[in-house]
Amino acid sequence: MIISMKKGATQEQMDHVKKLIEGFGYRVHESKGSERVLFGAIGDERGKERLTCLEAQPGVEKVIPILNPYKLASRETRHEPTVVDLGLGVKIGGRNLVVIAGPCAVESQQQIMEVASALKDTGAHMLRGGAFKPRTSPYAFQGLKNDGLVLLSEARKAYGLPVITEVMDIGSIDLISEYADCLQVGARNIQNFQLLKEVGRSKKPVLLKRGMSTTIEEFLMSAEYVLSGGNSQVILCERGIRTFETATRNTLDLSAVPVLKEKTHLPVIVDPSHGTGHARYVEPMAYAAIAAGADGLMIEVHPRPEEALSDGPQSLRPHEFRNLMAGVRRVAQAVDRLM
Amino acid sequence: MIISMKKGATQEQMDHVKKLIEGFGYRVHESKGSERVLFGAIGDERGKERLTCLEAQPGVEKVIPILNPYKLASRETRHEPTVVDLGLGVKIGGRNLVVIAGPCAVESQQQIMEVASALKDTGAHMLRGGAFKPRTSPYAFQGLKNDGLVLLSEARKAYGLPVITEVMDIGSIDLISEYADCLQVGARNIQNFQLLKEVGRSKKPVLLKRGMSTTIEEFLMSAEYVLSGGNSQVILCERGIRTFETATRNTLDLSAVPVLKEKTHLPVIVDPSHGTGHARYVEPMAYAAIAAGADGLMIEVHPRPEEALSDGPQSLRPHEFRNLMAGVRRVAQAVDRLM
Amino acid sequence: MIISMKKGATQEQMDHVKKLIEGFGYRVHESKGSERVLFGAIGDERGKERLTCLEAQPGVEKVIPILNPYKLASRETRHEPTVVDLGLGVKIGGRNLVVIAGPCAVESQQQIMEVASALKDTGAHMLRGGAFKPRTSPYAFQGLKNDGLVLLSEARKAYGLPVITEVMDIGSIDLISEYADCLQVGARNIQNFQLLKEVGRSKKPVLLKRGMSTTIEEFLMSAEYVLSGGNSQVILCERGIRTFETATRNTLDLSAVPVLKEKTHLPVIVDPSHGTGHARYVEPMAYAAIAAGADGLMIEVHPRPEEALSDGPQSLRPHEFRNLMAGVRRVAQAVDRLM
Amino acid sequence: MIISMKKGATQEQMDHVKKLIEGFGYRVHESKGSERVLFGAIGDERGKERLTCLEAQPGVEKVIPILNPYKLASRETRHEPTVVDLGLGVKIGGRNLVVIAGPCAVESQQQIMEVASALKDTGAHMLRGGAFKPRTSPYAFQGLKNDGLVLLSEARKAYGLPVITEVMDIGSIDLISEYADCLQVGARNIQNFQLLKEVGRSKKPVLLKRGMSTTIEEFLMSAEYVLSGGNSQVILCERGIRTFETATRNTLDLSAVPVLKEKTHLPVIVDPSHGTGHARYVEPMAYAAIAAGADGLMIEVHPRPEEALSDGPQSLRPHEFRNLMAGVRRVAQAVDRLM
Repeated sequence: MIISMKKGATQEQMDHVKKLIEGFGYRVHESKGSERVLFGAIGDERGKERLTCLEAQPGVEKVIPILNPYKLASRETRHEPTVVDLGLGVKIGGRNLVVIAGPCAVESQQQIMEVASALKDTGAHMLRGGAFKPRTSPYAFQGLKNDGLVLLSEARKAYGLPVITEVMDIGSIDLISEYADCLQVGARNIQNFQLLKEVGRSKKPVLLKRGMSTTIEEFLMSAEYVLSGGNSQVILCERGIRTFETATRNTLDLSAVPVLKEKTHLPVIVDPSHGTGHARYVEPMAYAAIAAGADGLMIEVHPRPEEALSDGPQSLRPHEFRNLMAGVRRVAQAVDRLM
Repeated sequence: MIISMKKGATQEQMDHVKKLIEGFGYRVHESKGSERVLFGAIGDERGKERLTCLEAQPGVEKVIPILNPYKLASRETRHEPTVVDLGLGVKIGGRNLVVIAGPCAVESQQQIMEVASALKDTGAHMLRGGAFKPRTSPYAFQGLKNDGLVLLSEARKAYGLPVITEVMDIGSIDLISEYADCLQVGARNIQNFQLLKEVGRSKKPVLLKRGMSTTIEEFLMSAEYVLSGGNSQVILCERGIRTFETATRNTLDLSAVPVLKEKTHLPVIVDPSHGTGHARYVEPMAYAAIAAGADGLMIEVHPRPEEALSDGPQSLRPHEFRNLMAGVRRVAQAVDRLM
Repeated sequence: MIISMKKGATQEQMDHVKKLIEGFGYRVHESKGSERVLFGAIGDERGKERLTCLEAQPGVEKVIPILNPYKLASRETRHEPTVVDLGLGVKIGGRNLVVIAGPCAVESQQQIMEVASALKDTGAHMLRGGAFKPRTSPYAFQGLKNDGLVLLSEARKAYGLPVITEVMDIGSIDLISEYADCLQVGARNIQNFQLLKEVGRSKKPVLLKRGMSTTIEEFLMSAEYVLSGGNSQVILCERGIRTFETATRNTLDLSAVPVLKEKTHLPVIVDPSHGTGHARYVEPMAYAAIAAGADGLMIEVHPRPEEALSDGPQSLRPHEFRNLMAGVRRVAQAVDRLM
Repeated sequence: MIISMKKGATQEQMDHVKKLIEGFGYRVHESKGSERVLFGAIGDERGKERLTCLEAQPGVEKVIPILNPYKLASRETRHEPTVVDLGLGVKIGGRNLVVIAGPCAVESQQQIMEVASALKDTGAHMLRGGAFKPRTSPYAFQGLKNDGLVLLSEARKAYGLPVITEVMDIGSIDLISEYADCLQVGARNIQNFQLLKEVGRSKKPVLLKRGMSTTIEEFLMSAEYVLSGGNSQVILCERGIRTFETATRNTLDLSAVPVLKEKTHLPVIVDPSHGTGHARYVEPMAYAAIAAGADGLMIEVHPRPEEALSDGPQSLRPHEFRNLMAGVRRVAQAVDRLM
């Protein structure tokens, strides 16, 4: 951290700030510019966030962080990419791309079996489907809950596809872990720190979806919660951020892919379905995600989107998904990835 | 809902859309413009969100909502303002303003007693203080937890101030309810729908803080979760939204006050401490909040902000808080409120 | 500026960076932390923006600015508030508040005279009205142009109110200066630097409206363009920024008022009409602006908003404006301002 | 437009609104829902923006637009893609991709010749370079102006590359048209409507860069200004929007590519240099842009970015640009485009 003093700060104020920095356990490096005095606080990074309270001290102008606040998630700590084992032979984070697909919500046995069969045919790697659904409205369909989990595991068995589903609270982690190969933490829970701590204690891989207003740094701090709990199997998913633009449901921040790949060793995937909110934009944005360097995709597929209980407008029909898979293969090859 | 057909939609497509709307249980009203055909879906509002899946149907251009998706939170359902009883004689939602103040986190007995004493002296109405703290970093101070609750209740007893503290997960609602007069749901949990459902079953008043990227409509839908659970004692708190501006920690959206007061009967307060992130901007924004029509304020106060374990830069010292209270009284009078 | 080197930067890279900094004419101050080496560049601030190109140099992690990039607009350069003379005895920037009001666009002689008369009656200080109108659509009313200027000057003469109107291009500055007491640069032109340079050469006061995505720092840099051109009569106007929230036309960033009052000596006013976009929110937000410390207001008033050629939804009727003026007087008194 | 009446609107209010709609020259279609009465205004779309003033009328809840406000830019008006002739045999808008590259600013004869030579070698199609530079700071390099134009035209002649450069004000359009093959309107001038009108009268192709807070609809309205002036040679360029994320200079909104390709017949290109602000993210985002369906790219290239007078951090070195071109060719092939 660098503590920048105000132009007119008195010697007494500066001495006091130095004493406070030292009191927090850091060494002080002083630097006199033409108009400002700066103090650098040197020492263990993890607690440095504490130093921000110095902004409350008379004479201090601002406190400027220099280093990243995350450690375990950082490329500086671990250089080689993390490869996460998603079960049934599917691995993500290496040269092979992974496509996760399925309906927003599990609605019925017929629906999930129909989708799983179509996915298997097209070479998708993993089945998604919500059993517990976070919905903006209390009056909207909230998911089949336990029955949904059972249906997912039937589809898993029938088609040999590992399964991912969302965990919405601590109380259901154990139950969901019995059925799912990977736990998904949704965008709305990305700073539900109690939940992050608990999935950090789990043995299952965890997929974290970036929140609508989560910065990349905060996203990595959420990953840090899981990693520091002892679970190293974390996958990051960009799914659009909230901006002023309303032509799309969210603004898919594809630059987050190269930024994340630079800063962390964790696998990064993209969800163009939530990212755009409209089925007709999913295909080009899926290609763009792969071209930008993503390790995989998460795509919503529904046999009859016009009857879907949630997210119909952004769901692909099976034949549209088949086209997408063919295109993804071509783009993957162009950027030297396998699928 | 209005379903707008594409310019070149065929008669067959239009007939199919009409059939689908009727299949969902709505009557259809058709309207032919110079370039578009529109269908209105007439019937029970609560389920209409389902109709958005029609955007996936060939020939449909877009689905446009006309009515608000919330009912219980709406002024149309209940015209008179809701007055919430916060305990120990403090009520919010009428002509009297309520000022809630205290440290970001409970840190020690001395700290919380010192603050509570100062608040009592200046006429503040309620004590805040976090026992369980949501922190972006897993390495930052996470709160005194149960000990913090005990300290809060000691301060409550000593100074006769009702107490509000944050609930971060379902598991601790019962415990916290033993100590606190009001449950706070933090900005990061505003769409943690499981938590909202549970506090909806509580007998305690609930204060909801708007999330960093929560629209006003979504904020009211979160209130609707609590209300539809049976708990009518809900208070809304504007605390800043996330924008491109970095001169302040968040952008305090004070327009949300008159918008909320128009749309809902629930009390609305403002937190200028989190809203601005800097102690020196808290006083003017507190005055602005009252002038804009807020029913109260939530202010962070700490005896020694430069040593605070969290949110030091935005905490007022007791003497600064005293000035603020004097100013708030003057502004309150100017806009015909009591304090 | 501080140049932060990467963790593994080589000695050779560091030496090269030092040489480049010195080559740009700065002294180098080196500082070794536990994980990073930092270089401070010491010397004349104005050109330091150049140093950002060092980010392109191998071994450099990032370049961090420490000082503000503006000089003439800064409180550090001039501590006392600037008082701008708006003509006909109206001055802004001191203890007296200034209310500027009038229609979005001048539409007819009757309209502008009707408004001016109502303003005079209620004690407003200055008349606004667009003659040249920036409109999103090329098919919308573009203003009465020269005829509008003539009508404004007739109203000025008839009611003794100084006049402000928008300048949209360099070519019309001279013409508009013949009729108006103050030149307005609109939100869409706040980074039209050619226009800023030219109004910097004018003898007329200039009101700058913050752009929809202009940071406070950029806003002050736009003021710096005018000031560095030799025109010290600059007024800043907050009028809402663009965010994800759609309940209001823009998000009025009232925190910008105390931030600007801290950073600059220039007068700051607020436009709650554009800020909210709806007449029913203008009154509370006008009060809030004054409570937050604004030096004045800009309010849209139209005799018949339902027939206005532009901005009808956000225009007050004369009797609504009268109420607002009475309320503003009460709030002004509460925060020790005169009107 | 649809005019939605309030729940309790009186018959008198409804009759008055109907009369006003008819007074503006539209037919009224009435529709009674279970809770609201809606009026549709049927007739010529271009003037409908006027109807928004009805929101000021008692009893009216809101005015909801149904149709797009642009005509000439719309795919509904012209279905086939527009192909723009950029000069010297370069055409954009068909199956062939166009790569425009060069330095942010023309700095010297040596610099621009060095870049042009490298571009020619790698198969780039057009040379960019600013002669007149919009800079946030009045103290930063403002471009070589006329000398820069001369240098550009020398490079044009020497290497047979058509040239694009920015037009910042009306006064320099004629001059710049003598030297440049295409006029660029920068992001900060995208709603400088006077400038748009004037380039609409030009015979030169015009490239419009999306502003930092310009919605896609507004972007198309800016194109409509140029088109309605009589100039049909318009190219749109996505270059990043402003959001809360600071890891990149802007947030490159690649979804805008498929959205624009759906809504308009005009060519769409992407500028990943400004979009990301960091050279190391340019390559992946260039690939992503092509994969998303862009018709071309605009890339900043500088022989020595660490000495650039502007935008050094986001400029590629010639050998980095060569790599990018090779990768773009592979991705282009994967999505069935030629280069």
